[in-house]
Amino acid sequence: MSIFLGVDIGGSSIKYGIVSLDYKLLAEGSIQTQDNQETADQITENLIEACLDLLADNHYQKEDVMAMGVGVPGTIINKTGIYEFTGNLPFHHYPLREKLSKTFKCPIYFGNDANLASLAESRIGAGQGAMNSVTLTLGTGMGAGVILNDRVYSGFNETGCEFGHIVMQIDGIPCTCGRKGCFESYVSATALIRQTKEAIKDNPESLLAQEAKEEKISGRTAFNAWRKHCPIGTKVVMNYTKYLAIGIANVINSYMPEVVIIGGGISNEGQDLIDLCQEDAINQSFIHGDVAKPQIVLATLGNKAGTLGAALFADDCLKDGLKY
Amino acid sequence: MSIFLGVDIGGSSIKYGIVSLDYKLLAEGSIQTQDNQETADQITENLIEACLDLLADNHYQKEDVMAMGVGVPGTIINKTGIYEFTGNLPFHHYPLREKLSKTFKCPIYFGNDANLASLAESRIGAGQGAMNSVTLTLGTGMGAGVILNDRVYSGFNETGCEFGHIVMQIDGIPCTCGRKGCFESYVSATALIRQTKEAIKDNPESLLAQEAKEEKISGRTAFNAWRKHCPIGTKVVMNYTKYLAIGIANVINSYMPEVVIIGGGISNEGQDLIDLCQEDAINQSFIHGDVAKPQIVLATLGNKAGTLGAALFADDCLKDGLKY
Repeated sequence: MSIFLGVDIGGSSIKYGIVSLDYKLLAEGSIQTQDNQETADQITENLIEACLDLLADNHYQKEDVMAMGVGVPGTIINKTGIYEFTGNLPFHHYPLREKLSKTFKCPIYFGNDANLASLAESRIGAGQGAMNSVTLTLGTGMGAGVILNDRVYSGFNETGCEFGHIVMQIDGIPCTCGRKGCFESYVSATALIRQTKEAIKDNPESLLAQEAKEEKISGRTAFNAWRKHCPIGTKVVMNYTKYLAIGIANVINSYMPEVVIIGGGISNEGQDLIDLCQEDAINQSFIHGDVAKPQIVLATLGNKAGTLGAALFADDCLKDGLKY
Repeated sequence: MSIFLGVDIGGSSIKYGIVSLDYKLLAEGSIQTQDNQETADQITENLIEACLDLLADNHYQKEDVMAMGVGVPGTIINKTGIYEFTGNLPFHHYPLREKLSKTFKCPIYFGNDANLASLAESRIGAGQGAMNSVTLTLGTGMGAGVILNDRVYSGFNETGCEFGHIVMQIDGIPCTCGRKGCFESYVSATALIRQTKEAIKDNPESLLAQEAKEEKISGRTAFNAWRKHCPIGTKVVMNYTKYLAIGIANVINSYMPEVVIIGGGISNEGQDLIDLCQEDAINQSFIHGDVAKPQIVLATLGNKAGTLGAALFADDCLKDGLKY
């Protein structure tokens, strides 16, 4: 009974799952990661133990694992198995494959978490049927994953693509990456919260400000006020979606994907979010004559995309004959 | 004696050449195109006649042509052979393959001119050895061609990639594409001339203004003044290369190519141009840990890139089994 193991390492938790050869998530689990309180070795050991428990609970042997896929934030090199860099976890030039291989004798493959989640959305989620897609994940930051010819595209050195860190406003808002005016700095949930707070400060009597008193300010706050026809909330949402549309048109002009998939917390606003930016994004794109236009759609796999994508990526690596 | 025919259609002239199977340009020619004075049919007939003459002059039969590649400005669909759209020539939804096929019975393949020129630079020019590259052509406009896995990448509908039309300054300088603040609007030769003229207007006594009196203002003017240590010329050049560096870092974060190749008229400034933006571009790129960095280099094929690229593209289409 061959299966894949998919692992999605995140800043605050690690998700992992057993995935069938036809890409069904058969069982899943998650463990917390505690910033600065664990070493890379401890996190890795906890992960191994959790995976072994999940396998045992579901009556699998570790020998049943045909391949293991692991998605991580930051930079990991599949060829070397070295986890080079991440901002949120204690992995620095860490030999993750070597460590995992002591327990798991199957092939183990690594990729960036946003890239692997995008692979799942592209192949078995919102992008089904498309060979080329880009997934933008509007969360704390903005992840972007590029799928070309039904495979993760990560550039010549495996560290791309980072479309969240395209400058779209020169000398604009400082970004976590060190640049100013990155796409991420205008369309992440963090950015929308910042924009909402600024509007509230300038308009303390607005319905938006009222909304914000009732619950913690989040990416939802401005959208809620917009739905109640608050002019200040509307202004925040229109400005946010203007930037998002410009960024999506940039995505289209860069990659001309068949589908642009929008995921992450902000995508919980649903079809409203798409409707607010779709026409503007397509109109701004460099498309002339009688040619097909890209679709802009909502992600469908939610927080299972990372685990599934890790398993799909492992399958791709096997099929493509990558032997590490 | 099999050969390729490469054709590079441009706004003011058409270049064409006989290319050997090992990618040597054996003979070449060019004819003028006169805006608004010729129909698409007339241009096509002139092109056919010129190619037949070139073949005859070099003792080839048209039956020697194994495949023909044609690069055009604007949007052409290789699959259909229809030239959908261009701003500078009278081709609108024009059946170019059908017309050329009446004379040339070999396979005929089409692509965007910037894309095909980039293929030549990537495979036999400045990018030799790299499988992934991006070529930026800093001319009247800014062409960008993306080569991934040693093939032209043009998106799901064959109309990408248009990296010149990535907004990098929201509500910035109006672009010919209809957007505002596109990369092209800051780094094309046209943009540099505009920036130079603005600086001269504000500083009529400067050495830069003096330079401009002696010859027509061009992309060279500001660089010449900078070499003579004119503070105003220096300011123009530093500002121009700042924008170019930001755009190159955007290219790297989007595609993570092994090589970024800079061509077009402005690249005649030579290594100075690279030196002025290289460090800044690499530092702004999202590259962490012990990984390989992209190279930024000057194009080497000059105005032969289009003709050669058209022939290389025809060869790729044959090898990839595309039958149109």
